[in-house]
Amino acid sequence: MNNYSPIRAGIVGFRGYSGAEMVRILSRHPRAEPVLLEHLEKEERPRPVGHPGPPRVPFAPEAVRSEGLAAVFLATPADVSMQLAPALLASGAKVIDLSGAFRLGTAENFERWYHEPHTQPGLLKQAAYGLPEFCRGRIAEAQLIANPGCYPTAANLALKPLIDADVIEREAGIVCDAKSGVSGAGRKPTLKTSFCEVTGNFSTYAILEHRHVPEILRTSGIGESELSFTAQLIPIHRGILETIYFRAKNVSSSGVLFDIYHARYAAEPFVRLYEPGNVPDIRSISDTNFCDIGFQYDAPSRRAVIVAAIDNLGKGAAGQAVQNMNLALGFEETAGLL
Amino acid sequence: MNNYSPIRAGIVGFRGYSGAEMVRILSRHPRAEPVLLEHLEKEERPRPVGHPGPPRVPFAPEAVRSEGLAAVFLATPADVSMQLAPALLASGAKVIDLSGAFRLGTAENFERWYHEPHTQPGLLKQAAYGLPEFCRGRIAEAQLIANPGCYPTAANLALKPLIDADVIEREAGIVCDAKSGVSGAGRKPTLKTSFCEVTGNFSTYAILEHRHVPEILRTSGIGESELSFTAQLIPIHRGILETIYFRAKNVSSSGVLFDIYHARYAAEPFVRLYEPGNVPDIRSISDTNFCDIGFQYDAPSRRAVIVAAIDNLGKGAAGQAVQNMNLALGFEETAGLL
Amino acid sequence: MNNYSPIRAGIVGFRGYSGAEMVRILSRHPRAEPVLLEHLEKEERPRPVGHPGPPRVPFAPEAVRSEGLAAVFLATPADVSMQLAPALLASGAKVIDLSGAFRLGTAENFERWYHEPHTQPGLLKQAAYGLPEFCRGRIAEAQLIANPGCYPTAANLALKPLIDADVIEREAGIVCDAKSGVSGAGRKPTLKTSFCEVTGNFSTYAILEHRHVPEILRTSGIGESELSFTAQLIPIHRGILETIYFRAKNVSSSGVLFDIYHARYAAEPFVRLYEPGNVPDIRSISDTNFCDIGFQYDAPSRRAVIVAAIDNLGKGAAGQAVQNMNLALGFEETAGLL
Amino acid sequence: MNNYSPIRAGIVGFRGYSGAEMVRILSRHPRAEPVLLEHLEKEERPRPVGHPGPPRVPFAPEAVRSEGLAAVFLATPADVSMQLAPALLASGAKVIDLSGAFRLGTAENFERWYHEPHTQPGLLKQAAYGLPEFCRGRIAEAQLIANPGCYPTAANLALKPLIDADVIEREAGIVCDAKSGVSGAGRKPTLKTSFCEVTGNFSTYAILEHRHVPEILRTSGIGESELSFTAQLIPIHRGILETIYFRAKNVSSSGVLFDIYHARYAAEPFVRLYEPGNVPDIRSISDTNFCDIGFQYDAPSRRAVIVAAIDNLGKGAAGQAVQNMNLALGFEETAGLL
Repeated sequence: MNNYSPIRAGIVGFRGYSGAEMVRILSRHPRAEPVLLEHLEKEERPRPVGHPGPPRVPFAPEAVRSEGLAAVFLATPADVSMQLAPALLASGAKVIDLSGAFRLGTAENFERWYHEPHTQPGLLKQAAYGLPEFCRGRIAEAQLIANPGCYPTAANLALKPLIDADVIEREAGIVCDAKSGVSGAGRKPTLKTSFCEVTGNFSTYAILEHRHVPEILRTSGIGESELSFTAQLIPIHRGILETIYFRAKNVSSSGVLFDIYHARYAAEPFVRLYEPGNVPDIRSISDTNFCDIGFQYDAPSRRAVIVAAIDNLGKGAAGQAVQNMNLALGFEETAGLL
Repeated sequence: MNNYSPIRAGIVGFRGYSGAEMVRILSRHPRAEPVLLEHLEKEERPRPVGHPGPPRVPFAPEAVRSEGLAAVFLATPADVSMQLAPALLASGAKVIDLSGAFRLGTAENFERWYHEPHTQPGLLKQAAYGLPEFCRGRIAEAQLIANPGCYPTAANLALKPLIDADVIEREAGIVCDAKSGVSGAGRKPTLKTSFCEVTGNFSTYAILEHRHVPEILRTSGIGESELSFTAQLIPIHRGILETIYFRAKNVSSSGVLFDIYHARYAAEPFVRLYEPGNVPDIRSISDTNFCDIGFQYDAPSRRAVIVAAIDNLGKGAAGQAVQNMNLALGFEETAGLL
Repeated sequence: MNNYSPIRAGIVGFRGYSGAEMVRILSRHPRAEPVLLEHLEKEERPRPVGHPGPPRVPFAPEAVRSEGLAAVFLATPADVSMQLAPALLASGAKVIDLSGAFRLGTAENFERWYHEPHTQPGLLKQAAYGLPEFCRGRIAEAQLIANPGCYPTAANLALKPLIDADVIEREAGIVCDAKSGVSGAGRKPTLKTSFCEVTGNFSTYAILEHRHVPEILRTSGIGESELSFTAQLIPIHRGILETIYFRAKNVSSSGVLFDIYHARYAAEPFVRLYEPGNVPDIRSISDTNFCDIGFQYDAPSRRAVIVAAIDNLGKGAAGQAVQNMNLALGFEETAGLL
Repeated sequence: MNNYSPIRAGIVGFRGYSGAEMVRILSRHPRAEPVLLEHLEKEERPRPVGHPGPPRVPFAPEAVRSEGLAAVFLATPADVSMQLAPALLASGAKVIDLSGAFRLGTAENFERWYHEPHTQPGLLKQAAYGLPEFCRGRIAEAQLIANPGCYPTAANLALKPLIDADVIEREAGIVCDAKSGVSGAGRKPTLKTSFCEVTGNFSTYAILEHRHVPEILRTSGIGESELSFTAQLIPIHRGILETIYFRAKNVSSSGVLFDIYHARYAAEPFVRLYEPGNVPDIRSISDTNFCDIGFQYDAPSRRAVIVAAIDNLGKGAAGQAVQNMNLALGFEETAGLL
């Protein structure tokens, strides 16, 4: 497929769900190979004899040079990412952080929504927000990339073209009713994510207060008081579906909405649209890097319902992180992702 | 607990999920005993030796008299209910119908939403809508009771007190994002409800067009263009959770909303409220006849999010049907349901 | 239903899955009322306003007298049960322990299988093994009852009549392939019981080494080298199904096996049999105190396959514990359990 | 990766679960491209605009020539496979049949276990049994390949090396307690595979009588009276785990068993072994073509428990079918499968 020798990409937090997905994607990536950077140990599953998996080395900033890492992924909590990023950046590698540490522009904004101090405010300005469909240029040039949150990825891809086209009656309010599989909550065992609490159940959390809200506001330009966002837990492993409601303006038919989306996304490899009246479900995007968007529109009453779906571990985390790596290292944007 | 000999209640459609739940509830009801009326055969599970279950007789209108049935439950599709109801009513039994046949007031309304002809328009006027919290008086006197749909039960209990108190800015729109377990779709095998299609998935259906919408409009007084209703399938057996969004008016604090609900429901045995900021999940009401209501309210922006949960087979079907039977036959309203 | 005022029964560990099931059963028990004994705090779910649930008091041995407790259930780990039991016994209450602390007859046996010291060996002799179908007399007289493990309850009910009738070719080996829902592992969050690890998966554990094995051996009389027992995790909340294999002797037809079971269990309220060739599944016994037993037998080859199913929280824990309380306090054995 | 232009492979039954998995595998296969052969229509999911999927043509034997198909996969029921196979063979394509039609050697054997007539007995002799680890030579030369059943694939890979090494005390009996995800039952909606019947449940079926039994006997050499085989339904989408029990002979330690397996499988790309005491679970092999084998052995009592796991749609169906195509067309055996 190519004659390049693959680059090596380090992964910190490879035992978490996003980290493990990164390993899986990179293991079949034509231009990159994963290197597991052991930072904090958790229990592991037995491996078959003779199948050791990717190479592992203890985490150390020097590993970037000794292991020849062109990129390092931080699939770690925000506080760990803030702690590890400076030395990694100093070592010259591209750093793609999957936490919320560098997404929100200012330390104040981070501290308001994450309820913890920001220990690396100096890095915020250089961080590119890693939503390729809207920030491709900056991503290609940045050394530090803040990979977007899962919920904001779907919400911004669904809403930003409509906000830009000014077809939402914003003062009537926009509702984003978001549902996620349990892997979005991470791998650390908690009562809320234990099997018996989740199976047979469906629950809301962080109503109006989810820390992903500011990412939606910042990227889309929607005002905080205009958006009602609720996060909810589906009893499934992976996948996000967001049902988005608003009253449209200047939209005489379904075709108008479709055309706005189509104009914006026809050339995008990872955003897929449906005919008006058809919508995706979670199965549509399982194990992919796609964001699928469909909608239902009632012109007389101007009620619009958008359905956007992504795999929270794909386009919502590891897939998008690899897409960002591809951009940052000059690879084909879709390499390893189709 | 009492010295009355129990009445006998017939169940048509006892092999469906609502029908089977009815059998379960009536089997431990202090005032009633189930009699299974065999109408159309479906395959069955083996039973343990010596545990034959409730008595079974072939369905026939005469069974009402020969078996001494004080009430008959129709856990059947609308067309079957329309076909069976007249003879049952003529036999003198109370008839509690779980289909949509007699809920919508007029044949026109039924035909618009159910896409089939109404064959018994003459019965529509005598049918009481079986939502006890708002129609208790009529239910007690009616011979034909139209048991409400599952989605409308939760939506009306959550919305009607607020509509009545005029605290919703209706012109901004009301969103009801509704989610249901799979038993709501009935027991007939279909691809959409087969295990491999549902597990690991979450999907929307009937966006803006669900046939339960007119029940919400009719009971709550909300206009069709004001309500955006989406039905969604959770990969669980039973339970409904509705996340309802609106902009409030004349609501200076959470306490105002709570007080409206509390004034309306404090004496209701099957509606439970939560402190502002707390909301139920599906586990809260599994296997019960409760409707649980909680909410989150942001006073400065007047964004309100209501969460209402019921068991679709309990308060959403069989439980409420028994509650209606209790009212219709003069039993304690909670008999067999706590 | 009766004119007695109900006794009060304390529950330690009421937030665990077995403990919560006990609360649920006792809340509708005609002769008993639950009292929650707060021993170690864990996080809780919000409760509806005005529905506080059963009374709660801090755990203390004196609570037995001050609260007038006729019985105390220990739904606690073995080490906690050993620590709390002596003072409770001294206070005069019946003590029903759901842990393995007092099931194995000797401290040596306990220490071999539980890998921890037995701190109350003096209590072992007075403990009655709480399998009513085989130990009813001792249970009625004992003050300390060791409620059986979930797996042994099903295995012993399935195997002991056949061992007693000497129809198993024991030297060929007996296989008990046991599967359990996740609640059997308790409520403490662990990686192994977290949703994303369990859903979509099925796994074995403790092959040949499960600590429930000695309970099977001790009750049934089977020798350790004759039994191959594997425990397995089904991705469901609750329920146990055991598939048991052996080569029969002196069994000329299915009817012979059925008659052995029927002779033993016809009068038992909580053991149900199926016609030869029919077997129960987990749905058969969900949320009940039944043990259902069915089998398939091939006479020419003498291959027998027994399927036994219980609800691990019902007959496998809380249900059987209440059955034992009923026996110990002289109530109807089935009170609160049908 | 290569310079060949890919061959085209037709798939009949591409909407079934095995067929859809075949499409997925072939879509990323370096040497082949899928062509969907529309035979019988079933309902479909909406597709994103501009993503039509693989080419579709109406099924006809002539399509083999007109579409240039080097191979045709029959992911169809046995009766359809028997009906379609002759014309396809006459057209010159390699035919890989996923049904049981051509697996059992004789029409008598087929008719005994499938309870239907064999309409193409003349083809039985030329069909190669498609278990590459044991039949690689014949597969490479055959035009008609009978892809093995899912259960027999795991059972034979686990048992045949031990039978060949004569380390099983066969007269004591061999137990194969097999569990499968629901996709093994096919995509046709039935009550037994509907979500509400399966979720929260676990059930046995076809005890001692499963039609996959004769495939195990035929390949492994085990006698029918020596094997007790039970099939069971796990509430998951895909995956098979078999727990196999026997009494060993001439096996002084775990290492002896391991060495037998290792000698047989060290060079096999799709069979993976675990250290003694470690076993795979279903997660180990999800979405792969691997068969993973681990075991626990107690030397003093000679009790052995083998755990074998495959993905029923991977190594149990579509993956193995592609492996067979690779062999039959002279491709790298692992092409498209790692």
